Amino acid sequence: MSEPAPARVEPSLDPTDWDGVRATFRAAVDLALDHVQHIRDKPVWTPTPVPVKVALHEAAPRQSQALGGLLTRFVRDILPHATGNLHPRFFGWVHGGGNIAGALGEMLAAFINCNLGGRDHVGVYVERQVLDWCKEIFGFPATSSGLLTSGTSMASVIALAAARSAQAGADVRRLGMAGLPKRLVGYASCEAHVSVAKAFELLGFGRDALRSVAVDQYFRLSLGDLARQVAQDRAEGLAPSIVVASAGTVNTGAIDDLAAIAAFCREQRLWLHIDAAFGGFAALLPAFRIPLAAMAEADSIAFDFHKWLQVPYDAGGVLVKDEAAHRGAFSTRRDYLAPAQRGLAGGEPWFCEYGPELSRGFRALKVWFTVKAHGLDRLAQVIQRNCEQAQRLGRLVRARRDLELLAPVGLNIVCFRVVAPGLADAALDRLNQDIVAELQLRGIAVPSTTRLGGKTAIRVALTNHRTTAADIDILVDAVHGTAKELLAAREDGAAPRVAAMRR
Amino acid sequence: MSEPAPARVEPSLDPTDWDGVRATFRAAVDLALDHVQHIRDKPVWTPTPVPVKVALHEAAPRQSQALGGLLTRFVRDILPHATGNLHPRFFGWVHGGGNIAGALGEMLAAFINCNLGGRDHVGVYVERQVLDWCKEIFGFPATSSGLLTSGTSMASVIALAAARSAQAGADVRRLGMAGLPKRLVGYASCEAHVSVAKAFELLGFGRDALRSVAVDQYFRLSLGDLARQVAQDRAEGLAPSIVVASAGTVNTGAIDDLAAIAAFCREQRLWLHIDAAFGGFAALLPAFRIPLAAMAEADSIAFDFHKWLQVPYDAGGVLVKDEAAHRGAFSTRRDYLAPAQRGLAGGEPWFCEYGPELSRGFRALKVWFTVKAHGLDRLAQVIQRNCEQAQRLGRLVRARRDLELLAPVGLNIVCFRVVAPGLADAALDRLNQDIVAELQLRGIAVPSTTRLGGKTAIRVALTNHRTTAADIDILVDAVHGTAKELLAAREDGAAPRVAAMRR
Repeated sequence: MSEPAPARVEPSLDPTDWDGVRATFRAAVDLALDHVQHIRDKPVWTPTPVPVKVALHEAAPRQSQALGGLLTRFVRDILPHATGNLHPRFFGWVHGGGNIAGALGEMLAAFINCNLGGRDHVGVYVERQVLDWCKEIFGFPATSSGLLTSGTSMASVIALAAARSAQAGADVRRLGMAGLPKRLVGYASCEAHVSVAKAFELLGFGRDALRSVAVDQYFRLSLGDLARQVAQDRAEGLAPSIVVASAGTVNTGAIDDLAAIAAFCREQRLWLHIDAAFGGFAALLPAFRIPLAAMAEADSIAFDFHKWLQVPYDAGGVLVKDEAAHRGAFSTRRDYLAPAQRGLAGGEPWFCEYGPELSRGFRALKVWFTVKAHGLDRLAQVIQRNCEQAQRLGRLVRARRDLELLAPVGLNIVCFRVVAPGLADAALDRLNQDIVAELQLRGIAVPSTTRLGGKTAIRVALTNHRTTAADIDILVDAVHGTAKELLAAREDGAAPRVAAMRR
Repeated sequence: MSEPAPARVEPSLDPTDWDGVRATFRAAVDLALDHVQHIRDKPVWTPTPVPVKVALHEAAPRQSQALGGLLTRFVRDILPHATGNLHPRFFGWVHGGGNIAGALGEMLAAFINCNLGGRDHVGVYVERQVLDWCKEIFGFPATSSGLLTSGTSMASVIALAAARSAQAGADVRRLGMAGLPKRLVGYASCEAHVSVAKAFELLGFGRDALRSVAVDQYFRLSLGDLARQVAQDRAEGLAPSIVVASAGTVNTGAIDDLAAIAAFCREQRLWLHIDAAFGGFAALLPAFRIPLAAMAEADSIAFDFHKWLQVPYDAGGVLVKDEAAHRGAFSTRRDYLAPAQRGLAGGEPWFCEYGPELSRGFRALKVWFTVKAHGLDRLAQVIQRNCEQAQRLGRLVRARRDLELLAPVGLNIVCFRVVAPGLADAALDRLNQDIVAELQLRGIAVPSTTRLGGKTAIRVALTNHRTTAADIDILVDAVHGTAKELLAAREDGAAPRVAAMRR
């Protein structure tokens, strides 16, 4: 060397006291496992106390701090005030409950620190394995392509970008949406998830280019209305291009008539994308094999692992049947990303050619650990039990005079409300809103609310592997009891008592 | 209850043998920490063996499998064949080295399983804390908004969507890109990262709407060419809207003249977005405070934590100065996402209003752990050392006759090549390509290649906290030795020997 290496010490960020770090990790594992093991004894959710919020509002630290102290702070300030979806009575929104094997996978992924954007390393083969399993489950051919994502929202963005490229009639990547010969138009039911409209906005179609199709009494996309709107758009010189169907709508769990929609899309040469965020994996159950069989006929499908497959957040995925269309919508490789025949720059094709991300974590590992540890049969059992619980809750609601079912029970979602003699809809809306807030604040259960037919509904989404029939009973009792309490306070003219935190 | 709860057992996915799981986690922690502690003694990278690839190509498992067995398989098949960026001699592409505190944060995040899409839980306050630190570091006001992302690619998509909404002159979310009064045009240097063009494609601008601006001899955006192109586009009735500047280009680490560009953007009413993927955090060093001070004048900035801040993959972020523009580009709240005054549905505003994702993992926790554990001073020290190592490598290259520096050393990136008397550029390209492949295959070091001025360069990106000056010496020696070996084989007319795996 023409220049000697500097003599001074060059410390890395690695610990000097490895044994101490080992002890901290063991303590962390014990604390985390204890927390999950005893989750049922804790409130579903507690608000973050003001002092904790204040402490999380400090200037950026200049000095280092011992790992053990940070763990202590995590256990005191963060662990008790999480989203709550570990708990068996978290029914608000469609959140999975997580699982221990998935947490192990995620820990190991954090240690080995792979970048799944591309190149030739084992992470790539793990992600391909997970995608192959999805192809198998959803009936997609081995030649189709896919990508793990943060969730269905991003998965749909990617799928619709592929659809756009395939349907544009010109090089939309080069020319942009304003450079196309015809305006592209898409269709989804009014019950489709908000992420579909957001994807249309993001991709530059504009929200107006997404037609809202009516639904039938079961909240399923109306094929008649779809056909009418497609015909009208064609007549007006627009280019009908994409239909987004739902395999489990967010409001009521409705499954669109996928087979009929697929046939219509084939005939009309429309790209069929299916939002299967949580409903897709119900295909593992015999009971849903028929309504979900036509997922195999879609051009693309978006789904979540962190919902019904219980993988820790976040983990979703997309499959696209036409690999060339998918890759064609995203692939760009500059000089510094050039492939090589040999070495780490091999491993063609790279995942960054199938989506907008060049940096991608190894989220495939937690999915791999989850599926391998439990096996599809046990995962299917969880889904089945949640569906049975939803049906049973529906029956319990129907059997009571103080409760009213507001939608057919689809899959795992039950929408109902408390009714009371002499109370008009506006008062009932407020009452049901208050019931949900009270249940949350008291830590008893976390349902959420939605609006159906102009009425505020208590919405119960069953997506947790820890939920039992007894939890459903506790929910119904608590709804009833809280309603009584709030109605009594109302009659007294008193404000309902402020909810106290209770174990 | 009108219907009794089912009597049969309802098993969750939780373990029955918690002690066994505890033991598996402890073993996993020990193995992972051992791996990191002794990373220097291992090859930087080894190709994934064929039997491992074959084993990762099995049908979806129906049966459950013990966690201990999965860990064994991970250690045997996955751990040794990772991307390699833990190793101090990983110089290929700008990958961070990860850190133990970050891994602890990620493990805990996997256990508590928060969804950062929104709602009122502690995860939200942790992410806001991390974003506040970024505002402090980059000189953004407290009123600006932000979001953690998978990386700079997604961060730039989000920032440019905000820019688009702000500059469109119409409701682009509703009308789409084809419904705008004027065509929007953006500008970035020809050295800008590929993710910028991909973002323009994704958002429906089209790649043609991103003008490629020339660079000066230091690979910095030419302000003269920018001004000329903006004037020309205005003259043609287009709407110049966005400039993307680089704080550290991917090829050479060049930092654009941010202050001058910011002044031009102010004058011309252009949205200034800065791609600060890795270079941004150099603002922590006194030496870069001046060239990077004008980051504070940008409208938006995208950056990565998993690069120079050593957070485990993936973790990036975006800041937008005009909160209303940012939120206005993404916010949509349907009935099932309605806010509430009280309870878990509180916590306004929700993070899903600032980006395309509704499901978002708790990646803020690993950033929080990393920054708290090490402190900004130590993190800055790592960045500084990498910059010094780059300068030193540059000097070593310049001092040798068999090596040629192909670009000024910017920040942490050194581009050079081996030269040999009598060899033309095409042969040198092949030689340097082969040297890089051999170094990778032998596990000695992982540089990558790029093209500069029509020549293949060996590209060394120094982004690892474990790298020492001795590693630079090993690299230079190995490049020299491998070149000699390949040239000798060439003169003999023999094929270079196939690289063997070596420890």
